[in-house]
Amino acid sequence: MLEKIDLKESISKDAFKKQSKELKAELAALQQPIKQQKLPVIILFEGWGAAGKGSLIASLIANFDPRGFKVHSIVPPTALEQRKPFLWRHWLNIPEQGVLSVLDRSWYEEVTVSRLENNVDDNVNLHRMNDINEFERTLTDNGYLILKFFLHISKKEQKKRFELLSDSKSTEWRVTELDWKRNKHYENYCRAFDDMLKHTSTAYAPWHMISSMDRDAATLDVYRIVVDRITDALNQKGEKGTGNALASEKIKPPSFSLVSMPKLSDIELNQTISDEKYKQQLKKLQSQLSELHGKLYAKKIPVVIAYEGWDAAGKGGNIHRVSEALDPRGYEVVPVASPSREEIARHYLWRFWRNLPKDGHIAIFDRSWYGRVMVERVEGFCTEEDWQRAYQEINEFERQLCDWGAIVIKFWLHIDKAEQLKRFNDRQSTPSKQWKITDEDWRNRSKWDEYEVAVNDMLQNTSTDFAPWHIIESQDKKFGRIQTLKIITDTIQNHLK
Amino acid sequence: MLEKIDLKESISKDAFKKQSKELKAELAALQQPIKQQKLPVIILFEGWGAAGKGSLIASLIANFDPRGFKVHSIVPPTALEQRKPFLWRHWLNIPEQGVLSVLDRSWYEEVTVSRLENNVDDNVNLHRMNDINEFERTLTDNGYLILKFFLHISKKEQKKRFELLSDSKSTEWRVTELDWKRNKHYENYCRAFDDMLKHTSTAYAPWHMISSMDRDAATLDVYRIVVDRITDALNQKGEKGTGNALASEKIKPPSFSLVSMPKLSDIELNQTISDEKYKQQLKKLQSQLSELHGKLYAKKIPVVIAYEGWDAAGKGGNIHRVSEALDPRGYEVVPVASPSREEIARHYLWRFWRNLPKDGHIAIFDRSWYGRVMVERVEGFCTEEDWQRAYQEINEFERQLCDWGAIVIKFWLHIDKAEQLKRFNDRQSTPSKQWKITDEDWRNRSKWDEYEVAVNDMLQNTSTDFAPWHIIESQDKKFGRIQTLKIITDTIQNHLK
Repeated sequence: MLEKIDLKESISKDAFKKQSKELKAELAALQQPIKQQKLPVIILFEGWGAAGKGSLIASLIANFDPRGFKVHSIVPPTALEQRKPFLWRHWLNIPEQGVLSVLDRSWYEEVTVSRLENNVDDNVNLHRMNDINEFERTLTDNGYLILKFFLHISKKEQKKRFELLSDSKSTEWRVTELDWKRNKHYENYCRAFDDMLKHTSTAYAPWHMISSMDRDAATLDVYRIVVDRITDALNQKGEKGTGNALASEKIKPPSFSLVSMPKLSDIELNQTISDEKYKQQLKKLQSQLSELHGKLYAKKIPVVIAYEGWDAAGKGGNIHRVSEALDPRGYEVVPVASPSREEIARHYLWRFWRNLPKDGHIAIFDRSWYGRVMVERVEGFCTEEDWQRAYQEINEFERQLCDWGAIVIKFWLHIDKAEQLKRFNDRQSTPSKQWKITDEDWRNRSKWDEYEVAVNDMLQNTSTDFAPWHIIESQDKKFGRIQTLKIITDTIQNHLK
Repeated sequence: MLEKIDLKESISKDAFKKQSKELKAELAALQQPIKQQKLPVIILFEGWGAAGKGSLIASLIANFDPRGFKVHSIVPPTALEQRKPFLWRHWLNIPEQGVLSVLDRSWYEEVTVSRLENNVDDNVNLHRMNDINEFERTLTDNGYLILKFFLHISKKEQKKRFELLSDSKSTEWRVTELDWKRNKHYENYCRAFDDMLKHTSTAYAPWHMISSMDRDAATLDVYRIVVDRITDALNQKGEKGTGNALASEKIKPPSFSLVSMPKLSDIELNQTISDEKYKQQLKKLQSQLSELHGKLYAKKIPVVIAYEGWDAAGKGGNIHRVSEALDPRGYEVVPVASPSREEIARHYLWRFWRNLPKDGHIAIFDRSWYGRVMVERVEGFCTEEDWQRAYQEINEFERQLCDWGAIVIKFWLHIDKAEQLKRFNDRQSTPSKQWKITDEDWRNRSKWDEYEVAVNDMLQNTSTDFAPWHIIESQDKKFGRIQTLKIITDTIQNHLK
């Protein structure tokens, strides 16, 4: 793609002054509607060293109120960031609704410069580019606007700029040996950039190629594109109340091979365990798990466990039996309640990305990202389009976790409606348990049938071979606890082989 | 203090079983009232290597529902953490209301082990211990319960335990060369611990010294103290609705030398600037500031700027003129609105600690921690005791920032009541500005006199010599902008000298 860019355009000072004045006024006028219509915008800049990213970003944001944007400079990942999936730090930075996020370099560093300089395997790189496409698609589908600029200059021009910077005492520190090396091997970087641009220029997040030979011309190009695309997005949002139209034409998402799951109504729920056998097995499995935890830690393998299930199905007690066996310094239980203001203003997966474990650690989610296709669906907190699409998004999310090296284990704790009523009544009549039962539990119970449809759909659509669902018979709580412990230890053991 | 601990106590298996069973039941029963009464609890463990912190923590938390606590292992600070005040990472970890935070090692590492091993200057160390006392005092005063355990074993016992671990293949990795070195120089560490224990055992957060020679005896001691202190805190909270009583008897807080400030009513608000002079000065000051920003970055000096002022006093435009001059990769504007659910559940300074800049960076707070003594006071969101105490807490906070090396600059943007009315009316009648004016602005305006009292008190009580207030005449917005730019550049220049 790079060779097709006309690197010659330049512009007269007068023309620049006149055009930039108009565009600046248009840019300044955009911020209020962005805020009012709650549009989250990501503008990222990639390109050659000395292509002028810094000054372009400075002049772009000078048009905005500093309270409405954030600038992020992407530097090499920290030690902690290296212990997370490569998109983790980028997920954490996504803006909230109504805010502009401007990125000086981005996740594309990982599939271009750092690919070359760290000799990343081609196959890994391809995976990463696909992950990026999925990341941008799910953001766009969920209302984000993503603008990607690539600033291009020629090898000769880059060399000239480096020389100019090196000539002055006050700027010579800005040119490093690495910069010179990169200029020398310009052609290699060119190929890596081309590769990346081809793979990641999508209908929902196309690359805008900017000739940066003339700074003024580049500035006008960027201004114009920013004005046009934000205006379009605002108009579409106004019409549809969603940003989805932006992603109308898109790469076909991957399909996943699914494990067939029974319907909830087909589960007999008749299995039990004797007290004696329970005690004995619990002890054995907990000590196995404890030992396995040490091995996971040593091998730096992360584990993500998601608990879902009917109210009063026994999630708390079940989780407790698992966590008891773990070294408290190596696991975390993440209770998932209704989202906070910060969470609700971002993509629904953001708060789960935020809470991923470090490698070698275990995160146990007490309720999870599946809220999207259960409570959000049933209560109408998102549109049908949203939750329909979420099956795919969730499968992609979990596949990215597995690609990172994680073990993903998912439980549906199952009881029947009569058992739930018994437990609710028991809670209500036992003073020490009353806090466990709220009006909301009764409201949810009244929608049992709707939830059952949603749960069945969820089990059918998201039980992948890399992250299958496990339905746990929890009618006998003790039986359920032994089952989850068995599945967790078996899954980890198989993975360690 | 260490030599006074009786290291001999041990306990029979039977006695342990019986007593621990009772205590475990008491512990388990505490979690619900902790949650209901929204008590935030910090339990930290310090002590010798191999004293049994890990297993003690494991057995303590086995009594709690894992959704109600978090365990934090404190390891040496990361590169990012080293670029923040030393208490930063500990502030970020404070629990929300109703949650138990269990710390395996803590901020005390910084004034004991890391003091010795990094040759920290005695004076710096003394400062840090005082900072810790202030940190714990302000947490306690604001309703937190802090339990501090020191696990003590003798040099001989430690050596024995290291040898035992080294003898087994599966545990030998747990004993490092550093551990042996620490055992060898046990006496030095003893002195450092003693120093720390003496300085930081306060009435509001006393140290509990535990003989850890016998694990069972230590476990019972810890259980008993946890039960007693949490029960006490819950009772006091029940009575008073606040945790303050815990801190009734305390070290006298430092007093600060204050800069005398005029009353708002004495400000004449008659200064103006011509358009021509404004343009000329703006350009000059912005270019100075731009250059200074580079120097700050090179010298890794952080800058914290707080903007306060009347509604419509021109904060937004003023901040914009400052931020325009800055490299977007080196500053951040932090807009402060009403706190989110996560923020409201923690100490009121938490969200400002969270948003501190890295060293070499600038953070501009658009409204700030002074909300505590203005809006929270006037609207009754906190008690009189709370906001009265906040002057001291805020001065301590800012002194800690200055100790870290930060430049702290605070502006009160001042206009009179008539000018505010004019600007409100102007906003209301100009379509493009209507979003800027809300019912709340009018409500606040109706309380002008109460706010004026609060602002005058704030200016008198928190204008310290290290972080003085600057009252900016903003009746003429342009005059105000030039003033803030002058003060910022002057302050930075003086600091760099």
